[in-house]
Amino acid sequence: MKRKATPRVPAPARPRLRVLLGESIAIGPGKAALLEAIAGHGSISAAARANGMSYRRAWNLVDTMNRCFVTPLVESSAGGAHGGGASLTELGQAVLAAYRDMEIKATRAVAREFEAFERFLAEPEASTPEA
Amino acid sequence: MKRKATPRVPAPARPRLRVLLGESIAIGPGKAALLEAIAGHGSISAAARANGMSYRRAWNLVDTMNRCFVTPLVESSAGGAHGGGASLTELGQAVLAAYRDMEIKATRAVAREFEAFERFLAEPEASTPEA
Repeated sequence: MKRKATPRVPAPARPRLRVLLGESIAIGPGKAALLEAIAGHGSISAAARANGMSYRRAWNLVDTMNRCFVTPLVESSAGGAHGGGASLTELGQAVLAAYRDMEIKATRAVAREFEAFERFLAEPEASTPEA
Repeated sequence: MKRKATPRVPAPARPRLRVLLGESIAIGPGKAALLEAIAGHGSISAAARANGMSYRRAWNLVDTMNRCFVTPLVESSAGGAHGGGASLTELGQAVLAAYRDMEIKATRAVAREFEAFERFLAEPEASTPEA
């Protein structure tokens, strides 16, 4: 079932860490990247664009994060729908830093096993996102 | 935004490990549980029921896994749609064991950080799965 097409951007296999709270993803690679983009761009809409997602999708991810933690990770300033600025709260900065720290430690802990595991994986181009 | 309702089954917060291949989840907690159920129940339909998912959903997850690895993890025997048996291939068993091993090591590696991280998390009942 392996296809021979060469992917334009070969995405390597990688282990990823997420933190689930009940059935929700409190934080994972996608939400961490979004937090970083919000910190860098100063708005949810610019962060959404930078991460190639719709404003609605980014807003939903922010909303989930804000509900999963004791206090919000992102705060918005006035400016109307899409127009306002957004920034990380103190907790948002702490959560992002803690997640990156755990991510590094988890990745390092499985590095040797993952090297062996990779031999089992097909070429990335053989895979497509599931529906 | 915290609600006071008591969940029937309090799902604790937990760090989870997934392996991405390109944009696909080659294996993660859900797929590992499905593999275990297939090994235990001997069919995809029984494994789907045991994991509270539709046959179609289980079949899609199996299909993704089979495409993500060099050879299939699950093999089906004859018996028509839904009727046939299914079992793990040798690679399926190896991948499941390797994933469980990496999962334990990753969880152990972040245990101390996660304890601190948990203080930031809201009560599980405050969260709902995102759309």
